[in-house]
Amino acid sequence: MKAVYTEHHRAHDVADEVYLGVAIPAHEVVQRAGIIRGALLADGGFELVDPTEHGELPILAVHDRGLLRFLEQAWSEVRRQALRRQSLVADTYPSRAMFEGLSEAALARLREPVAIGGRAGWWGLDSSNPIVPGTYEAARWAVDVALTAVDLVLDGERAVYGLCRPPGHHAARAMAAGYCFFNNAAIAAEAIARATGERVAILDLDYHHGNGTQQIFWRRGDVLYASLHADPARAYPFFLGYADEVGEGDGVGMNINLPLPAEIGDADYLAALDRALEAIADTPGSIVVVSLGFDTYRDDPMGDFALTRAGYAEAGRRVASLGRRLVILQEGGYHLPSLGKNAVAWLRGVEPVATARTMPRP
Amino acid sequence: MKAVYTEHHRAHDVADEVYLGVAIPAHEVVQRAGIIRGALLADGGFELVDPTEHGELPILAVHDRGLLRFLEQAWSEVRRQALRRQSLVADTYPSRAMFEGLSEAALARLREPVAIGGRAGWWGLDSSNPIVPGTYEAARWAVDVALTAVDLVLDGERAVYGLCRPPGHHAARAMAAGYCFFNNAAIAAEAIARATGERVAILDLDYHHGNGTQQIFWRRGDVLYASLHADPARAYPFFLGYADEVGEGDGVGMNINLPLPAEIGDADYLAALDRALEAIADTPGSIVVVSLGFDTYRDDPMGDFALTRAGYAEAGRRVASLGRRLVILQEGGYHLPSLGKNAVAWLRGVEPVATARTMPRP
Repeated sequence: MKAVYTEHHRAHDVADEVYLGVAIPAHEVVQRAGIIRGALLADGGFELVDPTEHGELPILAVHDRGLLRFLEQAWSEVRRQALRRQSLVADTYPSRAMFEGLSEAALARLREPVAIGGRAGWWGLDSSNPIVPGTYEAARWAVDVALTAVDLVLDGERAVYGLCRPPGHHAARAMAAGYCFFNNAAIAAEAIARATGERVAILDLDYHHGNGTQQIFWRRGDVLYASLHADPARAYPFFLGYADEVGEGDGVGMNINLPLPAEIGDADYLAALDRALEAIADTPGSIVVVSLGFDTYRDDPMGDFALTRAGYAEAGRRVASLGRRLVILQEGGYHLPSLGKNAVAWLRGVEPVATARTMPRP
Repeated sequence: MKAVYTEHHRAHDVADEVYLGVAIPAHEVVQRAGIIRGALLADGGFELVDPTEHGELPILAVHDRGLLRFLEQAWSEVRRQALRRQSLVADTYPSRAMFEGLSEAALARLREPVAIGGRAGWWGLDSSNPIVPGTYEAARWAVDVALTAVDLVLDGERAVYGLCRPPGHHAARAMAAGYCFFNNAAIAAEAIARATGERVAILDLDYHHGNGTQQIFWRRGDVLYASLHADPARAYPFFLGYADEVGEGDGVGMNINLPLPAEIGDADYLAALDRALEAIADTPGSIVVVSLGFDTYRDDPMGDFALTRAGYAEAGRRVASLGRRLVILQEGGYHLPSLGKNAVAWLRGVEPVATARTMPRP
């Protein structure tokens, strides 16, 4: 299997995140991508491919230009405004309740502040998402990783893995959030939809609900979003991800949320996966974008699921059995000792041929 | 002048706040109220009065019941959910952009999460607003301080000072924010409006825009809100407080924002105050609620204005010259060495008679 990877992700080197008001060591760290890359190389069944640059246009097909400009300018503004910080974390966010009673016209007149802390809040959701000097560079390359995986699949590959870092699925049209700046999976799906004219399905298997992907395609009839994730009543992103969120307008029925309980194991998880796969199978189209997270692992420090490596292999197998081409993009997963092996297990589930090729025969 | 005060504010004893992702010593501290109380006693021109309990109803006239319930339950939930924290600070807030594209019906289906961190975000705006074990007790008593000041004015006092702590003007109908939990000034104005049937004016002289008060009365024709404050492009609360926010519906023209530049001095500030006072004078009614902050002081650690004590005395004098009865409620002000003297200067400006009564005569 081809796996798209670039060292540029290292530019997004975050030391701390702010969890419930307290700085803790960051979960979404540089080592994550290196560990997965190392495991792919050790396995031998993967061919690493460099991403190619795709420019701003595919991003602007999905995101507000202001978000892109903010991320591009953020660190130079931190310096210009003489903010003494190793990273930029907002403290004030445009909560809905602040604007209650404003008409659509009044809401449209709201404006991005000038103070860099206010700007970060304006384009943000949470304090777990620090911006560092290289965030924009890495986030742009993560998009290029995803779009290069799309190119390869459009060129005929059956399944390609994009080792995106930073991840993307929490980023909405006009919002960065939860370790995510640009929504790699949404940008990939949009690029596929435009290139093929087909319907596209996104299968989100990260522990957390992909609120950003849901938001971007909420009213779209041509992109199916199906997500298995922790019930938002107990887990980030808290405010979206319930089963009754089914899309609106043209998108009615094209948003499928399967919130799951704590301690869920392989069997129940795979049963939920089958429900999502059936919905995808019922929808026309030949390509599926997979938002793949390993924070569903039983030892993950952020999650409370109890999946095993064998479960990942089986999940990959079942996704592959859809018979559709796959653009598999990395989202979360924070248990460093297991991350590489879990990725290999899942991807080998998709493409056992590669495994056979690399296993010595007697 | 009668001044309403209670020691119950001490229950809200906050050590740290989170500013741009970093824990710093709290600005809104217990000492603030003690310093002002001490200065009032030292002056001799003030009669301290205990607040009386007014119950939930006046709060629910202004706030969402869910906000009240959350604040009431927050600390026991912190303990029940085994969150090991000295204070509850959210990290994830329901930013508008998260919900873009949702219809009113879908927005109405959004729900408060169960996880206490998510609940705090649901009802919050920023990380500068920690909840501690005694926050609810103190916030309830701050409302009672404000409502007791209202009672005294309705009973015939010309001007009464309510030493509210925590302050209130950032708290919106369904949101706590910026050291504020219940909007003391809005609750007071609503109580006055209901008791008198008259129009009520709120004059907000805190350094920060009173976004909560503006929100609560945004579409109300019977409550005028006029605020002098730092331009939100550079200062908290960042997203509201611009001059073009004039109210909507019945409230058109009843919201007056006067955003001011950094380093503004007494003369320019008093000229802006005159504009607000003219608007109030043009509006029927006999009672003005003043949201009084001293974070406009030249030495304040949060503000960037350059007001002096003499400026406060003159401001008090000009507000009194409206000839209306005044319910003066404490909001911000964080330069502890000046806080008491500044309060006395402002209030003496309102009621020089009291000064005369306490000054020794030859």
